[in-house]
Amino acid sequence: MSSARNFSVALRRARIPRPQCWLRPIIANRAAVPAARSFSVSSVVGGNTTREIKYTTNAYPELKRNPNFAEITEQDVKYFKDLLGAQSAVIDGVTADATDDIEPFNADWMRKYRGHTKLVLKPQNKEEVSQVLKYCNEKKLAVVPQGGNTGLVGGSVPVFDEIVINTSRMNKIRSFDEASGVLVVDAGVILEVADQYLAERDHLFPLDLGAKGSCHVGGNVATNAGGLRLLRYGSLHGNVLGLEAVLADGTIVDSLSTLRKNNTGYDLKQLFIGSEGTIGIITGVAILCPPRPKAVNVAYFGLESYDQVRQAYKEAKGHLSEILSAFELMDGRSQKLVHESTGSKYPLEGEYPFYCLVETSGSNAEHDMEKLEGFLEHIMGEGIVADGVLAQDETQFQSIWRWREGITEALSHLGGTYKYDVSIPLPELYQLVEDCRERLTTMGFVGDDDSFPVRAVVGYGHMGDSNLHLNISVRQYNKEVEKAIEPWVYEWIQKRNGSISAEHGLGLAKKEFIGYSQNDTMLKLMKQLKTLYDPVSLAHFSTSFEGTNNVLAWDHEPLQVHLGIKRLHGV
Amino acid sequence: MSSARNFSVALRRARIPRPQCWLRPIIANRAAVPAARSFSVSSVVGGNTTREIKYTTNAYPELKRNPNFAEITEQDVKYFKDLLGAQSAVIDGVTADATDDIEPFNADWMRKYRGHTKLVLKPQNKEEVSQVLKYCNEKKLAVVPQGGNTGLVGGSVPVFDEIVINTSRMNKIRSFDEASGVLVVDAGVILEVADQYLAERDHLFPLDLGAKGSCHVGGNVATNAGGLRLLRYGSLHGNVLGLEAVLADGTIVDSLSTLRKNNTGYDLKQLFIGSEGTIGIITGVAILCPPRPKAVNVAYFGLESYDQVRQAYKEAKGHLSEILSAFELMDGRSQKLVHESTGSKYPLEGEYPFYCLVETSGSNAEHDMEKLEGFLEHIMGEGIVADGVLAQDETQFQSIWRWREGITEALSHLGGTYKYDVSIPLPELYQLVEDCRERLTTMGFVGDDDSFPVRAVVGYGHMGDSNLHLNISVRQYNKEVEKAIEPWVYEWIQKRNGSISAEHGLGLAKKEFIGYSQNDTMLKLMKQLKTLYDPVSLAHFSTSFEGTNNVLAWDHEPLQVHLGIKRLHGV
Repeated sequence: MSSARNFSVALRRARIPRPQCWLRPIIANRAAVPAARSFSVSSVVGGNTTREIKYTTNAYPELKRNPNFAEITEQDVKYFKDLLGAQSAVIDGVTADATDDIEPFNADWMRKYRGHTKLVLKPQNKEEVSQVLKYCNEKKLAVVPQGGNTGLVGGSVPVFDEIVINTSRMNKIRSFDEASGVLVVDAGVILEVADQYLAERDHLFPLDLGAKGSCHVGGNVATNAGGLRLLRYGSLHGNVLGLEAVLADGTIVDSLSTLRKNNTGYDLKQLFIGSEGTIGIITGVAILCPPRPKAVNVAYFGLESYDQVRQAYKEAKGHLSEILSAFELMDGRSQKLVHESTGSKYPLEGEYPFYCLVETSGSNAEHDMEKLEGFLEHIMGEGIVADGVLAQDETQFQSIWRWREGITEALSHLGGTYKYDVSIPLPELYQLVEDCRERLTTMGFVGDDDSFPVRAVVGYGHMGDSNLHLNISVRQYNKEVEKAIEPWVYEWIQKRNGSISAEHGLGLAKKEFIGYSQNDTMLKLMKQLKTLYDPVSLAHFSTSFEGTNNVLAWDHEPLQVHLGIKRLHGV
Repeated sequence: MSSARNFSVALRRARIPRPQCWLRPIIANRAAVPAARSFSVSSVVGGNTTREIKYTTNAYPELKRNPNFAEITEQDVKYFKDLLGAQSAVIDGVTADATDDIEPFNADWMRKYRGHTKLVLKPQNKEEVSQVLKYCNEKKLAVVPQGGNTGLVGGSVPVFDEIVINTSRMNKIRSFDEASGVLVVDAGVILEVADQYLAERDHLFPLDLGAKGSCHVGGNVATNAGGLRLLRYGSLHGNVLGLEAVLADGTIVDSLSTLRKNNTGYDLKQLFIGSEGTIGIITGVAILCPPRPKAVNVAYFGLESYDQVRQAYKEAKGHLSEILSAFELMDGRSQKLVHESTGSKYPLEGEYPFYCLVETSGSNAEHDMEKLEGFLEHIMGEGIVADGVLAQDETQFQSIWRWREGITEALSHLGGTYKYDVSIPLPELYQLVEDCRERLTTMGFVGDDDSFPVRAVVGYGHMGDSNLHLNISVRQYNKEVEKAIEPWVYEWIQKRNGSISAEHGLGLAKKEFIGYSQNDTMLKLMKQLKTLYDPVSLAHFSTSFEGTNNVLAWDHEPLQVHLGIKRLHGV
């Protein structure tokens, strides 16, 4: 506890001295996600190997293309080129050779999924989206909407030859009203661009996540992205005031209200939030944005047990209350991976089995610091945390966040990752990681040399939202390991009344497991809605939700199509 | 400005001295809404007159009962009595004489609507609700769900002989988890009961409104109640985590998740929030509740113009930021009505054309007071407000709120009130009141003696939500006045892209005007959903949304059935 005492003393003096590691330059900005355009199917992995991404159809041969859907013809391509023009950047592998250009739209960021699309369309507005969808609906051409292609569940890329409808050219900020804080944007506006625009106007986008540099606002809404500050600013179901979207038959739904209160009939826009593009393509978003906090602080702690993490969270809620804007959990293994991957010196002297990151955002720096000091003194006095540091400037702020947000990137350098983004009641949140690690170890999968498929089982996530990210780092994607994890992990979650997808959505990865988190009545009602909004795929419904509830006009995916999919920093 | 200076000086000394008026006892608690049971169709109005409430069918002879719906028989009553038993308090006017007992369920609190029901059912749980609805659906018996019957738009009472399904016996608090703040309650739990339960556990219900002593949580959700602190805690679309509901055919929808994040398919529960009971009856609610603020302050100001109110709001957002929990606007006329009705001395020395009430809620009394003082000094230094007081204790706190929440009650003592609850962009918010007053005055309707139908045109509301309550106080409900207001008022709002119902819903009052706030596509999509969830009423759809989108199995009301309707303090 000596370092904790030192910490406490330091606080009383001039607050924490800067450790050497803070003085190093920040490795990258927080949103260091490659944009879809710069992505390559054959890129360097782990710094020294080159590896092709497998086609999804090879990795999952049980997926069958529905023959009722048409194959794209040269006439179709001509129609789209005439309709959209050269400006809409039609990338065409049907009448021309566009193999290299088209691959970034076929494969996902995780290098786990890869489709066979031959056509990418980039409509510029809702009218163009409407015309494209109307045509596809009539011709029975399957489509997959795509935004920043940063999703983690294989929802933003095709599996077969679905036409990709990319939102990147719908990228205008339409309006912002300073009095009400309401921002209206095209669906393809990049989250970080929107937030920077708001920063210049003293406001904040009420959503933040690691992929902010690439993901599209429309995709965030389509996937009901949660991210880092849901704890403080609430969910998109509360913050999105209006939506503009296009249904499968081309119907334009204009519900782009900018009013905070509007109780005139059913709140239809809510259906689009989190439906992953399966009932329509979002083209515009109106969202309520809070004033930008004038003071932001971040602290990083080492703790001896998960029980202490829970205690620290309880105390943070009590002491920090309205200024608490993030409470993130990282286990020791996840921090070790970041350390090994970046070479950065640990923020704390010793190593601990658990770490947490606490952020405050408020309007008065002095008040916030007093609250934070009260919190720190309490948790250190009670021995809840073993050691901690508090960022003293923007560089340190970014650096501390890097230990949380860098986990995904660190994992990506090690090979493949089986990612599970789940909600579990707090008392048992971390137990899943321990149980999973024990299971895979007992089965002989985990080890330090290359003969073991599993490198590490790590856990981290948004503690404040009961949202755990269980990540199993593998040397390569491995069917035996996958079978050892699934459906075991879903059964584990179901027993605790958790959710098998907290914030990433179902996509292709979890579509067949929805029954672990939704009952038969709910599945039946969801199918009804899919049928209502996309009747063309009606004929392909079976009695089960699995593999039936099609994406617009696509055969194998229940809730698949992400529109500008999120990739969460932390997953 | 002399009093403002005094105020400022007082602040620096010991904060505002207590004016004499604070020392008087509070007139009533804030939630002084008569419960449905104590309501009488023939009660004293204005202290000295007795008046029967007109049947809605007489006041609106154009409403026609749909003959396709069955009339209730003695066999039906026997079925329900056998099913529910004596404990479910079946109030029966079919086989017995229950005239007096049944009237509180037939008429609304505003004394504007009165139905002809002969049967009130009080199921105790979702299974009983399911059996009742299944039977009604098969027998084509029309129903109207009812909670606290505190609605303001005629949505919570029958028009013809619909069976009332009252939720008052579903009144159990099911669970509360202190770590996550998630409360699970039956739909019939009274809002204030839920909040008191939470207060004992240091938490707060994230919704507050004047009718809290009577309204049911299920009804709050069914009508997407907004209320006083939406500004701070956000809408029910964000806070409701799970719902349990019963569809028209008796299907029980169990979506009672207590997870903050759950992205597994369509968020179906959102459809029930604000649908006013037209697609099902809510029987259970899971809701996220914040920690109870440790410090709450309230200040009351006099201002010379609406423009200054807007400036004060802007400054409140800037200075008070995360602790601002209410910003309410009241015009001078509304405060005069409260003064005349209660006999209370005004909080301020002079009279002003505008007043506002600012509330803060935070976790640190000292910090909050510093922020509030900074705000007060700024707005007084800049001459934005002319005078103000700050509550010094709980009694003063209640008393100040009484000047805001007492407006509805003050109006109710004067006769009838035409109430318009609307959203309008802030710059023009109050202009509607002025334009309406001018219009009715020019038309010769407004005056001080009994020969004029209109007594006063007042405006007040939730400034922070751009939510105005326009109230036209009449000596009796008057068709000529009504025609002078409608649809003029809706056209006015439509021109500003406002909403004709911010938080009260459509009910019977606004059902035919929904087209002023929703376009044809949206209306078509709403009809589709109504058809999906209540196909029995499908045959009665016409080409217009008006008078077609039936309540469960009821003929004349588009989005009518409120389940435990809200009556907002301020309307």
